[in-house]
This record gives sequence, C-alpha cells and structure tokens, in this order.
Amino acid sequence: MIRYITAGESHGPGLTGIVEGVPAGLTITEEDIAHHLVRRQQGYGRGGRMAFEKDFATINSGVRFSKTMGGPIAMHMPNRAFKKDDAGWPTVMNKKTEAEGIEKITLPRPGHADLVGAQKYNFDDIRPVIERSSARETAMRVACCSIARQFLKHFGIEIGAHVLRIGSIGFDNWEQVRAIADPLAENGAEAVYKAADESDVRCLDEDLSAQMREEIKVRRKQGSSLGGIYEILVTGLPAGLGSYVHWDRKLDGQLAQAIMGTQAMKGVEVGLGFESGHRPGHEVHDEITHEEGSFKRRTNRMGGIEGGMTTGMPLIIRGVMKPIPTMLNPLSTVDMKTKQETETRYERSDVCALPRAVVVAESVIAPVLANAFLEKFGGDSISDIEANFKKATQ
Amino acid sequence: MIRYITAGESHGPGLTGIVEGVPAGLTITEEDIAHHLVRRQQGYGRGGRMAFEKDFATINSGVRFSKTMGGPIAMHMPNRAFKKDDAGWPTVMNKKTEAEGIEKITLPRPGHADLVGAQKYNFDDIRPVIERSSARETAMRVACCSIARQFLKHFGIEIGAHVLRIGSIGFDNWEQVRAIADPLAENGAEAVYKAADESDVRCLDEDLSAQMREEIKVRRKQGSSLGGIYEILVTGLPAGLGSYVHWDRKLDGQLAQAIMGTQAMKGVEVGLGFESGHRPGHEVHDEITHEEGSFKRRTNRMGGIEGGMTTGMPLIIRGVMKPIPTMLNPLSTVDMKTKQETETRYERSDVCALPRAVVVAESVIAPVLANAFLEKFGGDSISDIEANFKKATQ
Amino acid sequence: MIRYITAGESHGPGLTGIVEGVPAGLTITEEDIAHHLVRRQQGYGRGGRMAFEKDFATINSGVRFSKTMGGPIAMHMPNRAFKKDDAGWPTVMNKKTEAEGIEKITLPRPGHADLVGAQKYNFDDIRPVIERSSARETAMRVACCSIARQFLKHFGIEIGAHVLRIGSIGFDNWEQVRAIADPLAENGAEAVYKAADESDVRCLDEDLSAQMREEIKVRRKQGSSLGGIYEILVTGLPAGLGSYVHWDRKLDGQLAQAIMGTQAMKGVEVGLGFESGHRPGHEVHDEITHEEGSFKRRTNRMGGIEGGMTTGMPLIIRGVMKPIPTMLNPLSTVDMKTKQETETRYERSDVCALPRAVVVAESVIAPVLANAFLEKFGGDSISDIEANFKKATQ
Amino acid sequence: MIRYITAGESHGPGLTGIVEGVPAGLTITEEDIAHHLVRRQQGYGRGGRMAFEKDFATINSGVRFSKTMGGPIAMHMPNRAFKKDDAGWPTVMNKKTEAEGIEKITLPRPGHADLVGAQKYNFDDIRPVIERSSARETAMRVACCSIARQFLKHFGIEIGAHVLRIGSIGFDNWEQVRAIADPLAENGAEAVYKAADESDVRCLDEDLSAQMREEIKVRRKQGSSLGGIYEILVTGLPAGLGSYVHWDRKLDGQLAQAIMGTQAMKGVEVGLGFESGHRPGHEVHDEITHEEGSFKRRTNRMGGIEGGMTTGMPLIIRGVMKPIPTMLNPLSTVDMKTKQETETRYERSDVCALPRAVVVAESVIAPVLANAFLEKFGGDSISDIEANFKKATQ
Repeated sequence: MIRYITAGESHGPGLTGIVEGVPAGLTITEEDIAHHLVRRQQGYGRGGRMAFEKDFATINSGVRFSKTMGGPIAMHMPNRAFKKDDAGWPTVMNKKTEAEGIEKITLPRPGHADLVGAQKYNFDDIRPVIERSSARETAMRVACCSIARQFLKHFGIEIGAHVLRIGSIGFDNWEQVRAIADPLAENGAEAVYKAADESDVRCLDEDLSAQMREEIKVRRKQGSSLGGIYEILVTGLPAGLGSYVHWDRKLDGQLAQAIMGTQAMKGVEVGLGFESGHRPGHEVHDEITHEEGSFKRRTNRMGGIEGGMTTGMPLIIRGVMKPIPTMLNPLSTVDMKTKQETETRYERSDVCALPRAVVVAESVIAPVLANAFLEKFGGDSISDIEANFKKATQ
Repeated sequence: MIRYITAGESHGPGLTGIVEGVPAGLTITEEDIAHHLVRRQQGYGRGGRMAFEKDFATINSGVRFSKTMGGPIAMHMPNRAFKKDDAGWPTVMNKKTEAEGIEKITLPRPGHADLVGAQKYNFDDIRPVIERSSARETAMRVACCSIARQFLKHFGIEIGAHVLRIGSIGFDNWEQVRAIADPLAENGAEAVYKAADESDVRCLDEDLSAQMREEIKVRRKQGSSLGGIYEILVTGLPAGLGSYVHWDRKLDGQLAQAIMGTQAMKGVEVGLGFESGHRPGHEVHDEITHEEGSFKRRTNRMGGIEGGMTTGMPLIIRGVMKPIPTMLNPLSTVDMKTKQETETRYERSDVCALPRAVVVAESVIAPVLANAFLEKFGGDSISDIEANFKKATQ
Repeated sequence: MIRYITAGESHGPGLTGIVEGVPAGLTITEEDIAHHLVRRQQGYGRGGRMAFEKDFATINSGVRFSKTMGGPIAMHMPNRAFKKDDAGWPTVMNKKTEAEGIEKITLPRPGHADLVGAQKYNFDDIRPVIERSSARETAMRVACCSIARQFLKHFGIEIGAHVLRIGSIGFDNWEQVRAIADPLAENGAEAVYKAADESDVRCLDEDLSAQMREEIKVRRKQGSSLGGIYEILVTGLPAGLGSYVHWDRKLDGQLAQAIMGTQAMKGVEVGLGFESGHRPGHEVHDEITHEEGSFKRRTNRMGGIEGGMTTGMPLIIRGVMKPIPTMLNPLSTVDMKTKQETETRYERSDVCALPRAVVVAESVIAPVLANAFLEKFGGDSISDIEANFKKATQ
Repeated sequence: MIRYITAGESHGPGLTGIVEGVPAGLTITEEDIAHHLVRRQQGYGRGGRMAFEKDFATINSGVRFSKTMGGPIAMHMPNRAFKKDDAGWPTVMNKKTEAEGIEKITLPRPGHADLVGAQKYNFDDIRPVIERSSARETAMRVACCSIARQFLKHFGIEIGAHVLRIGSIGFDNWEQVRAIADPLAENGAEAVYKAADESDVRCLDEDLSAQMREEIKVRRKQGSSLGGIYEILVTGLPAGLGSYVHWDRKLDGQLAQAIMGTQAMKGVEVGLGFESGHRPGHEVHDEITHEEGSFKRRTNRMGGIEGGMTTGMPLIIRGVMKPIPTMLNPLSTVDMKTKQETETRYERSDVCALPRAVVVAESVIAPVLANAFLEKFGGDSISDIEANFKKATQ
C-alpha cells in the first residue's frame, strides 16, 4: 500500500516528501515528476512570485538507475524563490532562535486556516499557520502523487483534468461537457489535460476560456477573487477496484477524502453528482451492454463508479474550489491580541488559483487508485503485478 | 479512537456490529439507539416490507448498568421480516449447503453493485452482491454510529438533517435554506431533525413537502424513481477539530469519506459547496467578529470548516443521493451467463429512499466528529474528557 | 487486508467477533472453526467450569453454501456455562439497571489487569475489568483467526504449536527440540499440533509430559501456579512475505505484536531467539544452499525470518506465558476503596493454562501471515489468488 | 498520533525522515537529536568508517524558534562518509543512469536480507537490498524517535538502556540486574544510559565490561561475531497507558513490534520475560501496596505492564540482538546467477554492534509510549497536554 507524508513551510528551506510502498521496478525520473510540478505552476490570473522559477523535486532515495527499489522514496524541493524576494522570511522562520523585533501576525484572514489554526495550537502569532496551510505544500503533494500516477500509467491508467467553471462562466450542463471531454479521453485521459493545458485557464472550450479570462479581469479590478469547478477523468481502470462490502473500502469515499483533503476544496461529486438529485431514475442510471467481449454502459452518468467500485468505464469526478480568501478589498476581522474589530491587510495575491489547483486534484487521486489496483493485482515488483494484471484481464 | 465494523446480509439471520474505542462511563441504552433505527425506517414513498416491524439492536457486550465499560460494544439486529414474507430466502442464503433448484441471479441491475460486484469476486450468481450491498446494512451502521452520536450529545454536540430537494422540487438557494434551518438550530441541531421528522419527506418547508410528495406520486406512476439532496447541521462543535497540517487529518476530507461511503451517495459539499465556485470571493468568505468573549463569523457560508478544521460555527454539510436504481420500468441489461441483452426484471421497490437515507447520513458523520473530539480532549473515561473539555473551553 | 474485532465479557450473553477482508470463495464451516475452539478448551491442569460444554461459534454472515462471500463474517458464541453454575452473574452484569445489593469488587489481584484497568477507566468496581480482560475473550479470537488459518491452509501453509516448558520442566536446548519437532513438520506443521494434542500438556515428549503433569500437581498442592514456554511452527510459507524496507512492514515485528497482544504473554522470540545473544555468529547464521531448483538453508536457526521476511524455511516462533496470577495461596493487595492492605480472596482457578493458551498463540499469528500473503499474491477471490500464487511459485 | 517514515540508502545522498503528529509547542533542537545520534555511533568493537564523522540531522520543517509548530518535521542527514572512502558508490547507486561496468552483487550473505530481498523484489543484483536493509537506516530512526523522546521527557518520562550480555558474558540473573540498574533509575532512567555510556560496551558492571571486551577480541580473532542482550528502563510513566480491551491496543504488543521491527532483533520480553515460564506464580507476581497516596508494587517482575497497560512502576523491556552476519570467516552460500555453491566474500565489518544498537532500541519505543500518552492526555499543544496531565495526576 502506498502512503506518503509531506512536510515543509512556505518560507522554510523547502518541502520534503516521502512515498512508501511503491513496488520495485517502476521507472521514475525527476523529469517525470517535474512535468506535473511545472504544470501546477502555470495558469492565468496568478500573481508574480512563483512564475520565474520552476519547482523541481530532487529524489534522495528509493530510485536507482531510474527504477524504484521497493523502499521509501524521499524528495526535497527547495523554496528557492524566497531567497530573492522575501529576504526577511528566513529570519522570521528561524528554526533556532527568535530574532529581535519580529512582528507577530495577529490579524486572521477569513477563509484561511489562520484563526482556528492559532486557536487550536495555542499560538499568539498566526505565522506558523500561514506557513503550513498555504498552497505551497501542494507542490510536494503533486510530487509524491506523481509517482503513483506513473505507476498507474504503466498499466494504461491515465488521468486528466479540465476546468468547467470559473465564477459565473462555465458549461451549461453534463451533456455539453461530455461532448467535448469524452472524445478526447477515448485514447486515454492524458489527452484531456494536454488539451486543457493549451488554455491558460485550462478550459477545453475556447470561447469559455476567453470569457473566463474576462471574468478574472473584472474581479481583479473589483479587488475580489474567484474559485470554480473542475472535472477529472481517469481512463483505463479495470472493473472492480474498491468494494461495496464495507463503508471504508468504497472507492468513491476514498476519492472524496483525497479531493476534500486538498486546500480550498468545498465539494466533490462523482458522475452526474448533485445533478442526479434533480433527475428521475431513468435519466440517471447507465444501461448495461456487452460489446467486443466485455461489459459496457450505454452512458456513463454514474461516472464509472457503482457500489463503490470502478465499472470499467472512465472515472468522472468533479470538485469545487472556493475563491481565494486573500483579496485586495478587505474583509472585517478581529485582532487576536486586542480583540478589536479591524480589516484584513492588503496583500498581493492571485485572483483565481483554479487552473493550477486542478493539477493538484488530478494528482491526489492517484495514490487512492494505485492502492485499489495493488489490492486487486498485488505483488512486490512491477513484473509480478504485470503478470497478475495480464492474467486477470485476459 | 472509535472504529466500527458492520456485518450481515439482507436475508441472513441478521446484522451484527461492533464499536471499539468508546470511552468508559458513557450512558447508552438500546432505546437511545432504537430511536434512530426507527427514524431510519420512516418516510414517505417507501414500499411495504420494513414498515411493520421495528428494527431493534440488542447490545451484547460493552455496556453494564447502562454505561459503557471501555470495551467493544457488540450489537445484533435480527432480520425479522424475512421469516414471514420471504420464506424462500433462508434456503437461498443457507450458510452450509446449497439446496437443489436454487436459481442463480444473472441479470445485473444498472446502478447497483450487481455486475461489478460479481466480476470482482468471481461470482456466477449476483445474489451475494445484492445481499451485502443493499441498504439493509445501513440499519446496523446507524446503530453503531448512534453510540458516537450519544457521545457527542453528552458534550452538547447535536446533529440534525433535513431534505432540501427531491427531484425537481427543492429550495431555490442557500439563503432560503438558512432562513428556515438556522433559527431551528439555534438551540441545538436536534431541533432540525425533530422538525424535519414532522414531514414524511423530512423537508422543513410545508409547501415543498407537499410538492415533493406529489413528485414522488408522479414518478411512481411512471415507473421511475427519485433521489435528492439533503443537509446536515451540527451544533456545539468547539473550534479546532481536525487539522490543516496534513491532508488526511483535514476534517472535511474525513467527513466526505463517511458521506460518500454510504450507499447511493454521489456528491458531498460543505457550506456553500459547489455554489462557491459560482460566486466572487466577497460573497463567499465569512467575516470574523468577536462577541461575548469568543470569536464568531458574521455569516457561515464556509459551513463551519476553515483549513480542514471546525470554526466553532455550526457545521453544514450536504449530500446528494441518486434515484433508486430498481424501477418498475425496466432498463436494458445483459445476462451474465448468456451475454445476451435483455431487460431488468420487475421488482417491488421504493420510489424514493431519501427521507430515510438522511438518518444514515446524520449518523455516519458522528464517529468522525467524535474521533476529532477525542484527539483534542482525549481521555479514557467520560469524566476525564469532561474535565479536559471544561478546562479547555473556559 | 484481513482485520477483526472481538467483543464480549465472560459473564455477558456471549462473545461476538467480526472478520473483515477475507477474499471470496474460501471454504469455511462452523465445524472447521469449532475444531480449534474445542482444542482451546482441552488440556491438563484446568479447573472445572468450561470442561462440560463445548464452545461453538455460530456464523451469522459472510458465508453462503460454505463459501465466503467477500463481506464481513460475523460470529456469535454464547456464554452457555454461566447459565448453570453462576446464577448471580447475569444480574451483576445487567446491561440496563443496577440491581440492589450488588457488591463491588475492590480487591485487585496482582498480575491481572484489575488495578490498572480500574484506574484507567475510573471504575470503583473492578468487575468490568475482570470481565473483559479474562482469557474468555480468547475463545472468539481463536474463532476469528481460524478463518485466516483456513485461508493459509488452502495455500498449503500449516500452523502447529507444542509446549516446550512448564515451570522447571522442559527441553534442554534448541537442538533437542529440533530433533523432535522438525521431522513431524516435514509434511506440514499441523502434524506438530496433532502430535502435541496427544499429550494433555501438549508436549511432544512423553517423559517430559509426565514430569510436567507432576510439576503441576506439586504446585497445585502448594497453592501456586505455573506458566511456561511454547513453540509455533509454520510450514509452507513462500519466501518474501514481509519486508525490510520499513520497520512496520517487518513480519517478525507484526508477529511479535500478535503474540504479545495475547493475555499473559511476557516474551516472544524467533528461531534461536535469546539464545542467539549467547552464541558466536558461526553458530547462529544459516548457510545457503540450492537444492532441487530452490534456495534452502542448511540449518534454520533464524527461524525462517531474515530481514523481516520469510525465507521459505519453516517459521519458528516461541512465546512465554506467565503463571496464572489467581492462586489459592493469597498475595498481598490493597482494597481500592479503603486503601488498606489485605490479601487476595480465595478463588477457584486453574494451575496452568499453557496447554490451552498455545492454541490461542497458534491462532493469532494467522491473520498476520494471511495479510502478508495477500499483499504479495493479492486478489479478491480465492481463484484469483490461486492463479497469482501458482504463477509466482512456478 | 505520532507517525514517522524514514527513507534513504547507505550510499545514496543521505537519509530523510518525517515525523507527523507532534503537538505544537514542544522544544526541539538539532542538538537534542544529535545527542542520541552520536551515542548511536559510539561503542567498542566496531569497525572504522563511521567513527570519524558525527551524524547530524538537519531539521527542514516543523520547528520555529526551537518549538514545534504542530506540522510535520522533516529531517535530512547526509551520508557524508562515503564521499571520502567509498568513491565508487555514488556511481553504483546513481539514481538516473546505469554506468558501464558496474558489477552486480550476486552472492547473498546468510543472516542478511540479501537473498530473500532479491527474491521478493525480482532483483538480479543484491545491492539495492543491502543499501536499504543495512543498519545505516537506524540513524534516521533514532533521529525521528528522539523527538518523541523529547516529548516524553517534557512530562518526566525518561528512557535508558544498558547491555546485559555479549555472547558468553553477562549477568547471571534478574535480581543481579535489578540490584545495579534500579537504584540508578530511581531519579529517572536517563541515569541508566548515562552510567552505561561510561562503558564502551554499555554495561553497568565494570568487571563484566572488561570480560565483554575480551570476548569481542577473542571472537574477532576467530573471524566470528557476537550479539547480545540488553534491557531498557522507562521511568515516570503514569499508570493506565495502553489497554486490555482489544489485542491491538495492548501496550506490550506495540512495544514488541517496535523492538522486533529493528534490524537484527530476534526476541523481546517484558519484566521477567522468559524466566517467568520457569518460575511458580508466587515468584512472579508483584504484590500491591499503597504508599504515600498511591498504589505501588512490592516488586516489579512484571516489568511495569499488567493487562497490556503500564502499572506506574518502571517499564522494563529486554531484547536480543543476533551476532552480525558479516564475518571474516566465510559461510557457505549460493551464487544467485549461477546457482553454484560458494563462500561469502571477505568484508570489513564490526564484530559486535550491540553497544550501539541499544541506542536504537531505546529510541524506537518512544513513539509507542508517546502515542499511548497522547491518547490518554490528548491535546494539540504542550500547554493543553500539560494541563490535562496535571489534572489527571493530582
């Protein structure tokens, strides 16, 4: 079973991650990982800082001659940027001694972990909360999950996401999305993300992309921010991953936790999702057919999951990201020290992080799927698993 | 940490559950548990079978003089009904020998675990899948989770759910729901479920209730079915349950797994949820205030969760249930044995299970919340935890 | 992955257990389980109560036509005996109301969980501790683990234990034990337990058996008690279960937890164990050979484990059970209520529980081994796993 | 709950570790950690390499102004030595490309993970196994566990170990050890390790220390090696950590896994351990007394554990380490490639690693104890936990 832990703060020396449980013999290179790290850094509507320097996770263990050895894979990714443009941070985040004159942050920003984090851990300074709860952490999460993603890809399982909506601009309905996304996914879901990457808002529709950019511009001028909705497709999954026999073995539940365990996500749905509460049964369920020797579904409104298990149809999972809480236009807040009402401070920030966040969402589901796959086709090395998989799918 | 396992098939001798990790000294009675079991059995639009006999879980261990003893609590709930009206089942589900002439079920019903379950476990008969994947199992889940719910209630944490939508009928928007649900929840969220229980569709609005009943009638005539959307409120939660420091410790992720790990659920959202992807930031985030010695939020659009932690505001979590897949009007399917296309068989079924399913949804989040509470105010007995909790919240 | 929870007190209505994660298609009958339950009840030197009535675990779910269905297997085992000879217990263990005049137990017995258990859970009555910490619970543990044991046996993996020492009587050294146990195990370790079962002290040597019986008689007269040392052999294990890559994946660590998680066990060792601290390296390590197409060891002093993994040689694991703490001759203790020193009360008790406890020890390692096996040859059904296993071992 | 993962090979760039779940506000410095790292490097009878350069783990996250922040703590420890004296290794362990002419290691060493590791992971080269299974990994394990150790020490819980036996030289019996170790531990178990550290074989008895050194010299000349037996004491533990209610919550089981999950350990025992199988009950159990307001035991032969819980008396746990398998005098083995019998190659190696390994053993039990402590006195910050702990122990 693959498990991973990430560590690191935004302005500490860097991020660290360890991935344990990867079978031996899987081809992994730092470049494979960097591919998704760079994708995570790209997208319209973001602020300046991270744009110049590309994240790169250095592998420090677990890989020899580009193949995994079965042991834990450690990665480190330096926080390069702060050396240049945030000269004060290494002092305020000093691991040893408190420098004189460091100002405590006592104005919690609504929508962030600030206030509750400080309450939880008995901090009189919000900085430690900001440092760990920020989206910077997701860079290492993408790195760790990319290894699971490589594992899946080895077995023909591909993941690709695209943006459905940013604020008021988005696709009208399920069928419209299917018409544009499903043909792309026919030869593997990576085609979906590759097509989406052509747009700086990661939307597959050119017109909508233009409108989304416009929406972002408008909200930026207003000093507000935007979130949005995205969809992830996974192709190549065999039927029967996950199980109906116990609640914590249902794959959709595990996927939901992974998505909702990501910063700023407020909802997740599989297939038609919330729309399935509006429709009568005949417009929801997917009739079963048998073609070319295997069972298929006439439609895929269940999003590739029935009874907590993969059906063999593409997995379709959607999530929503709330607007970035840091906004030019201030919100009311309360000084933690004085208990006086005041306003949040001006802070430079992106307006919409969604186009980049979809890369995180794509990534976090990979370990869940890899573990379900390993449970079914278990083995210690890629060659073992290949043999079990081939046999099972013949 | 509370963990639980349920066991049992629909037409076996009964359901069994064990709950491990409950602190000692908690008052628990079978009647407390039966209260929610009976609620789970009630609601408009259901078929006949379960209506006559009330579920009752007998406690077989872990409780003495109505107080928990710190050890595992075992419960058993007989499947009484089948003795009367399904005389054939004990034979087809015999644990020892296969009686002659038992027909194998080979027509998988779309939308159920049938086909994939049989593929996964190499069954040539779907019956074992139907037996375990059915909603009957949720009765024991409610029983197990009711114990966690009693634990929470002891500390003033109350849970209550209500129905927002059945098919085309539902509340128009967030604010409308807040106006009706939040005042009820002011003195504890149990008032929400109690008010909802007054309606046989568990909707807080009388007019909508009437329309929902009508919707169900219409779809029944058409031989179709319905799902819908519900909302759970939790009041009394202290700030700081869950954590932002690692993805798998985020409370919203854990809650999402519990909800999505329940039969027929296709989506989950916290607070504004998917709506937060449509709105600009200023219409999403909750400004912070300080009243009567504690931090509050002017609104609660984040649904009581920021940074994966409770904020101290009511938790608001929503889920969607898909329409019941068993419908009078058949769907196309394929005989697993012959691989020939055919139609699903006529089966008696409910039209809409949502009013009952909300009781399950209310229940499954209780262990998640209880564990987060135990992590923060840990102790082995209720008196320990009370002391820690009082001290922390003074 | 197989997990299980047991529940129940000695004088409650019975014991309950649930085993989750067993693959589908495994043949399981209540008689298979009862075989080990009855073995656990048999042995020299025990008191009266349990001798008359045989334990029997009724399967209540998870099995159809004698085959597992992939879902949780629930079992229930009534505490029959107390109905006859302990008429007062149902009253003192009433789950609802406290009957009048029930005496609280306030004299903790040294060596039992009594005192610490009451301190931990804030009890002013030791009875709840006695009820759950007693060896009665191990009956359900044997039942649960017997299912894992059946799984292993399906793949040719057999487990058998025998007694090495009771008090001052035992084998002199490692080689002496190997000479008697290993030839028996050559065709499978079940032959070991079958031979041991011929002796009522479960010792493979007839002379030693006689001396052990004598030792028990002597200690009984003195009002004292005895423990002892036992050895478990497991044959048929393929090489490579467990892993060296992370501490919590080492099979010997997992086995040690299972053994030491059993009542009254104070030590565990693999192979030569503590003796390997006395010897120089050349008398410890097992030289490698290659015979008939596979790697073997010239000796098996490492007990079938190297680097936390099975070597393919028989697993040899030993444990020690302390003497029963309940003794006719009293020990000093302190009344929990008055804090006055006093003596433990007279209680009827066995003198030596070891011959029966070895059946528990045999059992508890089965789920650990089954899970390591499942990780390597994973699959959802016995037929899947068979195919993976055959392929891997060809 | 504290969890940790270590990563790294002996001749890769270094070792990485992440510790997750440490409460906020705990004082931690790299020097605290280095203290035990250096202790792990010291001891008689070792070879040359590691002696010159001191291990030092750099903290890369989770600590600010010398206090933990509640988030994951990442550490990195470079493999400095190999840069100097093993110039070839970086090439043979290259993470990217396979250099030409690198010789595969195909001679498995008996007693190491070599053969089974290669079989398990389908390697035709043993090097990856050697790299991860070596004791080098324990350096990072010590670093990770030192943080849990600091946590315990904050609450007055101290750990200290000493060597009881090396080969044929050791203490004669339990009482002899008690007479020398227990008085030292009276003011905290750290006094035990500090006294032991005065001896280069970490034995508390001067005469035995001299004999042990002699024993090592003799076995070195013979080209053999030695293991031995050690004892860990833990003082300051409150009563009631762990639980009797379920097998996997028994503290002794969890401790046993931690010890046996350490390289080269073949056995573990608590208190009298295996000796308790030789003695009658009256010479094993510890009578209860009440002194100065709290319960005590007249003796501590149970080693501070009853019913899987701490009794409040010092914890006494012992382990055995097998002799180092690498020896100058070769053992028979088989070439993995040719399947021909041959002998192990000459390799420089220590003769006895025990004096250093006891530092690892001291360390690995710390997270187990810290987690049991956190379960009982839970909280998110040190100040919370202090308050809960004080209240409970008043």
